[in-house]
Amino acid sequence: MIGRMSRRTTFRTASLAAVLAATAFAPWLSAQRQPSWDERFRTLPDAAAIGQYMQRLSARPHHVGSAYSKDNAEWMLARFKEWGWDATIETYDVLFPTPKERLLEMTAPTRFKAQLEEPVVPVDPTSGQKSEQLPTYNAYSVDGDVTAPLVYVNYGRPEDYEELEAAGVSVKGAIVIVRYGGSFRGTKPKIAAEHGAVGCIIYSDPRDDGYFADAVFPEGPMRNKDGVQRGSVLDLPQYSGDPLTPGTASIAGATRLDITQAQTLTKIPTLPISYGDAQPLLAAMRGPVAPVSWRGALPITYRLGPGPAQVHLKVTFNWDIKPMYDVVATLKGSTYPDEWIIRGNHHDAWVNGASDPISGLAPLLEEARVLGALARQGWTPKRTLVYAAWDGEEPGLLGSTEWAEQHEAELRDKAVVYINSDGNSRGFLQASGSHTLEHLVNEVARSVEDPETKGSVWKRWQSNIVANASGDRRNEARSRADLRIGALGSGSDYTPFLQHDGVASLNLSFGGFDEDGIYHSIYDDFYHFSKFHDPGFLYGRALAQFSGTLAIRLADADVLPFDFTNLADTTQGYVRDLQNLLKQKQDEVRERNREVTDGTLAAVNDPKAPRPIPALEDVPPALNFAPLENAASALTRAADRYKAALAKAGSDPAMLRAVNARLIQAERQFIDESGLPRRPWYRHLLYAPGFYTGYGVKTVPGVREGIEQKRYAEAEKEVVRVAAAIDRLTALIEDAAGKVGGGTR
Amino acid sequence: MIGRMSRRTTFRTASLAAVLAATAFAPWLSAQRQPSWDERFRTLPDAAAIGQYMQRLSARPHHVGSAYSKDNAEWMLARFKEWGWDATIETYDVLFPTPKERLLEMTAPTRFKAQLEEPVVPVDPTSGQKSEQLPTYNAYSVDGDVTAPLVYVNYGRPEDYEELEAAGVSVKGAIVIVRYGGSFRGTKPKIAAEHGAVGCIIYSDPRDDGYFADAVFPEGPMRNKDGVQRGSVLDLPQYSGDPLTPGTASIAGATRLDITQAQTLTKIPTLPISYGDAQPLLAAMRGPVAPVSWRGALPITYRLGPGPAQVHLKVTFNWDIKPMYDVVATLKGSTYPDEWIIRGNHHDAWVNGASDPISGLAPLLEEARVLGALARQGWTPKRTLVYAAWDGEEPGLLGSTEWAEQHEAELRDKAVVYINSDGNSRGFLQASGSHTLEHLVNEVARSVEDPETKGSVWKRWQSNIVANASGDRRNEARSRADLRIGALGSGSDYTPFLQHDGVASLNLSFGGFDEDGIYHSIYDDFYHFSKFHDPGFLYGRALAQFSGTLAIRLADADVLPFDFTNLADTTQGYVRDLQNLLKQKQDEVRERNREVTDGTLAAVNDPKAPRPIPALEDVPPALNFAPLENAASALTRAADRYKAALAKAGSDPAMLRAVNARLIQAERQFIDESGLPRRPWYRHLLYAPGFYTGYGVKTVPGVREGIEQKRYAEAEKEVVRVAAAIDRLTALIEDAAGKVGGGTR
Repeated sequence: MIGRMSRRTTFRTASLAAVLAATAFAPWLSAQRQPSWDERFRTLPDAAAIGQYMQRLSARPHHVGSAYSKDNAEWMLARFKEWGWDATIETYDVLFPTPKERLLEMTAPTRFKAQLEEPVVPVDPTSGQKSEQLPTYNAYSVDGDVTAPLVYVNYGRPEDYEELEAAGVSVKGAIVIVRYGGSFRGTKPKIAAEHGAVGCIIYSDPRDDGYFADAVFPEGPMRNKDGVQRGSVLDLPQYSGDPLTPGTASIAGATRLDITQAQTLTKIPTLPISYGDAQPLLAAMRGPVAPVSWRGALPITYRLGPGPAQVHLKVTFNWDIKPMYDVVATLKGSTYPDEWIIRGNHHDAWVNGASDPISGLAPLLEEARVLGALARQGWTPKRTLVYAAWDGEEPGLLGSTEWAEQHEAELRDKAVVYINSDGNSRGFLQASGSHTLEHLVNEVARSVEDPETKGSVWKRWQSNIVANASGDRRNEARSRADLRIGALGSGSDYTPFLQHDGVASLNLSFGGFDEDGIYHSIYDDFYHFSKFHDPGFLYGRALAQFSGTLAIRLADADVLPFDFTNLADTTQGYVRDLQNLLKQKQDEVRERNREVTDGTLAAVNDPKAPRPIPALEDVPPALNFAPLENAASALTRAADRYKAALAKAGSDPAMLRAVNARLIQAERQFIDESGLPRRPWYRHLLYAPGFYTGYGVKTVPGVREGIEQKRYAEAEKEVVRVAAAIDRLTALIEDAAGKVGGGTR
Repeated sequence: MIGRMSRRTTFRTASLAAVLAATAFAPWLSAQRQPSWDERFRTLPDAAAIGQYMQRLSARPHHVGSAYSKDNAEWMLARFKEWGWDATIETYDVLFPTPKERLLEMTAPTRFKAQLEEPVVPVDPTSGQKSEQLPTYNAYSVDGDVTAPLVYVNYGRPEDYEELEAAGVSVKGAIVIVRYGGSFRGTKPKIAAEHGAVGCIIYSDPRDDGYFADAVFPEGPMRNKDGVQRGSVLDLPQYSGDPLTPGTASIAGATRLDITQAQTLTKIPTLPISYGDAQPLLAAMRGPVAPVSWRGALPITYRLGPGPAQVHLKVTFNWDIKPMYDVVATLKGSTYPDEWIIRGNHHDAWVNGASDPISGLAPLLEEARVLGALARQGWTPKRTLVYAAWDGEEPGLLGSTEWAEQHEAELRDKAVVYINSDGNSRGFLQASGSHTLEHLVNEVARSVEDPETKGSVWKRWQSNIVANASGDRRNEARSRADLRIGALGSGSDYTPFLQHDGVASLNLSFGGFDEDGIYHSIYDDFYHFSKFHDPGFLYGRALAQFSGTLAIRLADADVLPFDFTNLADTTQGYVRDLQNLLKQKQDEVRERNREVTDGTLAAVNDPKAPRPIPALEDVPPALNFAPLENAASALTRAADRYKAALAKAGSDPAMLRAVNARLIQAERQFIDESGLPRRPWYRHLLYAPGFYTGYGVKTVPGVREGIEQKRYAEAEKEVVRVAAAIDRLTALIEDAAGKVGGGTR
């Protein structure tokens, strides 16, 4: 995955045979009746096969443009075909920079040259594949050669720069040193450049994925002192995909921007480093001591700077166009061949990528094998299944984006859902996505067995919320029929489907137990996975069971299982959130102004380390939320009416066809062709990655970011635009309710 | 101070002349009228003199029984006399162990021998006074020689052992390694022993007072890798003072317990170490990774153990009886010579002790000098002032306790208040004590100028709450007439006065800005103080101004300025706290039982690192709080009535004498001669140090600790006893109100 919200986790040792046996005799497989196709499906995925796919696919480095990436694509193509699918490789040519020069040295107060190299670990066989490994770098950094004092900016988020400003420290003309975590790495140089920084060094603090959490590799799973997180610094919240072909497919003959015109490259040179390389730089800094929450786990006093540590950063790249191979396989639908259930996971990695992405891709392949086997046994899906292994996700969701751009018209006509995964782990279901699918996810979670507890995945998911939440959230987890799923921001291949084309989407994984610190390093490989995670691949099997069940139910449903009451409930919550957000901002500004005016802030200042007294600020104005409130209420009424109508629905084929045709278009109603303010590629008015978070979601983004960025007039306009989208959906649901009920309203 | 709640702070550089000038022309010194004695007092303390006292008193190590401790006492005696006070040295003979052997070595999995030595720092002149320095040790550890595996127990508080139990780790037969902070150090071996540990190592984690906060000594103010916090591990919550003479004075001829009978020594051998010595031990541990909040700032993975690190700990002591010198000076009252205003600060230190205790003692001496000068100018206090410099505070409040035990009858008859300090620093007023004095503290805070802001101490105090609190607490700080003061637990010399003898007490200091890490080390000296704190002693002057003003107002008041409405308000709050505490415990047990019963905890367990499922537990019963509620209501009514009567009071001398005689006894009403459950020496029913916190206060301790320790029947009995004490006070206030109003009710 290009980015990740929390630490990665994986598998545990267990007896595969025991699990297969347990599943075969699962209580829901009643002896009284013929099992359904999705019940049969769930008994068939083979954990050992998943392990074999992983071993094959992660055997060598397989980044975009590498020999083994192509080899993997061809191997998967052959497998899909062998398993009875129509399959093809779709090829794109994309800008993919690789390092030419990388230099980082401290020039004052002492000299130090960064190593910028992950050492071979003798017990780890693939860590020595040096000739095929990409060096440690951030893809889509611009070329640059700068020398400047350092400023430490914590995670480099907007709130971190507010804190710096409060401390009276500026990054203007400085090179920022920022730690990984808390936001998509691509936003770190972006925000730094907006504040006037001339360079950006991103390091992995041991507080976040090093020894603070557990022993380091190879003794333990965490990042060792020389481990480096590679990764893309593309400005993903502008648009994903090839920086040179925004909105269109980078196929042969496509019109390409000149590199100088590409909006999604960084503005300043950027380089990732290990904490071994970071420690001397950070230790040489002076200036105010960093706030408590900014301090990492290095045995030093963290300081803000600027300087006196001064560094020289030089990076240049080979700005090459490289071929990219998407493997796309279909199993044609019998009744509704033009309704597509799409399932995807990327296949490219930064290096060997056993965890990222193969731990998610291997289960997808096993689903495909078993679905093919069921088809041979006589199952014919009503709708068409499209299974895809994307290339180029790591640099910027390239494979999925270019494909979704190329097939945009078809997708907007035919796509029912897109189901994504991107790595997998051990523990609790982690599901996010369109809230029309929340109820379906809960139903499937009740049908799939958790490999460790032998209870349902749903029960363990619920237990995790109950055990860790409190108050209203815990009560809700106990009483609400469905557990809530999160909304999608970005960071994996659902983005072009959901946010560019309006296809209802899900992102799925298991996780929660095992931390690791090998993300995007040469140590994310089969050795690490086998030693520190579960060689039994039981959760890989569970993921295959889960997403395969989803695919079958969606493919075979008489009426597509979209639920609008959960969506309406969630939307009502978003409207309240926005109102609270505005009130909170108003209260904050009022309080700060008061503390400035009445001398409170002057009185608490420390003359030994004075902080500037902030200027008075206008209190955010009241905004008219009424259009959104009314739209959400109307949506709630329509959703209830549809649900009631559905309970009494008949089975007339023409009626079903007409209703489904409407339902497919439901998510599309959130698309506004003009896109979000200042980023037209993102067109979904309910879900988007934050402009300054990169993958963290901003729901109702036009309104929310308008408030956050103090563009209040824009926020009020966005209220109207979002309300109109909701109203379009409400009309569609009313129409569907009428059709289900036997006529139009 | 024997213990401290938060990090220590001190002074800043500033122009003494400027401050003296500013104070001389303070706006409250109106030209229209003759300044009052307390106004004149505040213009006179001399910051430079305070610095000179510090330099003299901290010039050599001056722990109990040392040559320089006696020399200091004699020097102070001479000064008091020179300044016009009657002064005397009162001598006691107390058990004061010093180290004979100290050995700590790791015997497995590798060998390591702890250094147990604070090195001389060449730039720090007094750090080289090796021949007079006490070695690093914990006073009142028993002798012992044990070898056992290590278990890491965080701060070693009851809740830390609950967490260990939840993780399935036992300390039985182990040596615990515990970090300083979070509780009085003496509770650490006590609680460890209760859980079956055989030894206790206490170390200073750099997270708490080392490089995590700032640069280490001598580059910065924080603890360096070899710095060690000495300190007493006496079981202070049982009783303070000489372990061999509980409840009676350890004067010549006193009956002494045999050492084997002393209840306040540790049960297991205990030794403090530096983080330089701790790191190899902690790094060699395995077992579960410690919870996030337990992890310190060493560059290691913190683990719980047990083992495989195994250590050999051997400590033996010279169990000597040492002489101890309290310096006690009096300035006799004219009108009420038998009403005493007592002011104290200890003079003994662990080593040089510039910060602890001299930064508090030097201002006290300057108060005494100025009060003496005023007396020569014609001021005659109505009440008697008693100024004391206590010896033996560090080992266990020995000097104050033995004195208070010796003079118990007199104190209970004559003592109006006890005003304590114990070190001082730069920033905000930090006042705790009897809530009858809360209003007076606020009044004085409005009268004393803050040296940095030139506004009142009160305004800066209020600003600090407003700027850092939120919600109700912030609103209250803006709207309530008086800012709240905290309640007193233990950790300094107010304990025998307040909690043994029922004397209304205060503890005062300034602080909040400057962190340091030299507490109880050889580096707490004049060099450190002068380099990292303020050589101008402006806050030393402010403390002298503050407590001297308090003393004058208390000495000269027609009616003693006790306010019962704030006490009643606080008491009402305590009753609500207790009810909430019980409800919270009930809710916790109900919730945990539910999660056990419905399988939630089993479902969230990690089979790779399973935690034991807790047993079902009885839900705490409902308790009858009505007696307390009724008593608090009656107290509130009486307090209001007294306040109203006071507003119309006359000035008849006999009436005033009669009212004051009642008021002196007000705090005494909280004393119950049978003391707290299982610790009869502590007799105050409203304020006590927690049995398991050591200095952190437990208000309404009988009831609160009954609930916390699951002694519900006892808690309910204590409710009745506390209610009776409040009723006694209510009757006294009603009586005083009647007298003020011109008769008895």
